[in-house]
Amino acid sequence: MSATTEEVPPAAYTPTARTVPTRSRERASYDRGLVHSILDEAYVCHLGFVRDGVPVVLPTLFGRVGERLYVHGSTGSRPLRATGDGTKAPGLPVCLTVTHVDGLVLARSAFHHSLNYRSVVVHGTAHRVTDPEELRTALDALVDHVVPGRSADSRPANAKELAATAVIRLDLDEVSAKVRTGGPNDDPEDAALPHWTGVVPLRGGYGTPVPADDLDPSVPLPDYLAAL
Amino acid sequence: MSATTEEVPPAAYTPTARTVPTRSRERASYDRGLVHSILDEAYVCHLGFVRDGVPVVLPTLFGRVGERLYVHGSTGSRPLRATGDGTKAPGLPVCLTVTHVDGLVLARSAFHHSLNYRSVVVHGTAHRVTDPEELRTALDALVDHVVPGRSADSRPANAKELAATAVIRLDLDEVSAKVRTGGPNDDPEDAALPHWTGVVPLRGGYGTPVPADDLDPSVPLPDYLAAL
Repeated sequence: MSATTEEVPPAAYTPTARTVPTRSRERASYDRGLVHSILDEAYVCHLGFVRDGVPVVLPTLFGRVGERLYVHGSTGSRPLRATGDGTKAPGLPVCLTVTHVDGLVLARSAFHHSLNYRSVVVHGTAHRVTDPEELRTALDALVDHVVPGRSADSRPANAKELAATAVIRLDLDEVSAKVRTGGPNDDPEDAALPHWTGVVPLRGGYGTPVPADDLDPSVPLPDYLAAL
Repeated sequence: MSATTEEVPPAAYTPTARTVPTRSRERASYDRGLVHSILDEAYVCHLGFVRDGVPVVLPTLFGRVGERLYVHGSTGSRPLRATGDGTKAPGLPVCLTVTHVDGLVLARSAFHHSLNYRSVVVHGTAHRVTDPEELRTALDALVDHVVPGRSADSRPANAKELAATAVIRLDLDEVSAKVRTGGPNDDPEDAALPHWTGVVPLRGGYGTPVPADDLDPSVPLPDYLAAL
């Protein structure tokens, strides 16, 4: 009913050979909203790339703007150097993975012990962001990923800082989520074993914000932090 | 003073070209005790390997026995198939990474926003465990990694389950930790800016254990869970 010309992405990503798991396929999902929610809840991703023929996996900050992820680093860092100097370079094949562990699943049998979790795996080619406007958008997204609303309440990067910052972009295209929920799946013949069985939930949470040593005590705690 | 012939590993891992970071070298550590504590506190690792020339990063359960890590999977899973059938195979180059996020570091400048974290990166070659005794030790370690003491309070794997389980071993040899703690590092000239600045601690924790639907209500919650 809308007259907008904006492209609305379909509700799910298209599975590919490498986003269909070989195990536990019933746990896989390509739902765009689920993928976004898992990504947005995470403070770090694990970024994998290949260097000298072997894998490297590093934890790193990231942010999301629609169907684009932005990963942050210094211009001197290894993966960012490998992305070259923008769209002219072929880009860096990466795999970006995010995982939340929600519970410990204790079965009667050692074999059926498990974790409840939500994960997202993104395959693709990362490119260095060189457009100044996109770089500013990406940096805001990285700060707002840590605390939503924070980029508007901090000093924006100056020219020197922008020059020292490299950001790479990874499009959300070849993406899957995997989710395990619920209790243990013990074999029926183990039902009479005497062991306690069930799930221990894991809870994330925030402690009381700790002001910096040099913070003027008259500066109040902002609403977006008090609400955490 | 001891007459034991057991080899006591040195207090630190030896840095190598790929375990010395290009950035923030002051945050790197090779201390064995620190590395073990970071690994043992994590419920999942992120395991990176190369498939068809591109990186793959998957979250997975793991356990530790001394200087060996064990990673668990089905015999049909992709990385485990690639490790071949034991010591005759060349093994699979992997990078295993574990990260804890301890706090959100909110600086006055967008540029100095950061996270407090502890991470460990292990480089090496993974080999399939084929020795039956080592396989049992590894499976116990995987269960005890979820809840210490749990392997003694669950039914051990039977022959059919052992045959369906593949475990790969990765030695702790080329290893580094990286730790950021403390408050924001704003530039002195930003000290008068009006923004709140400091750290929001992140807290992990356990919720109340949820018994399985089919658990006999007379089975008490074991001490090792009540103590969590």
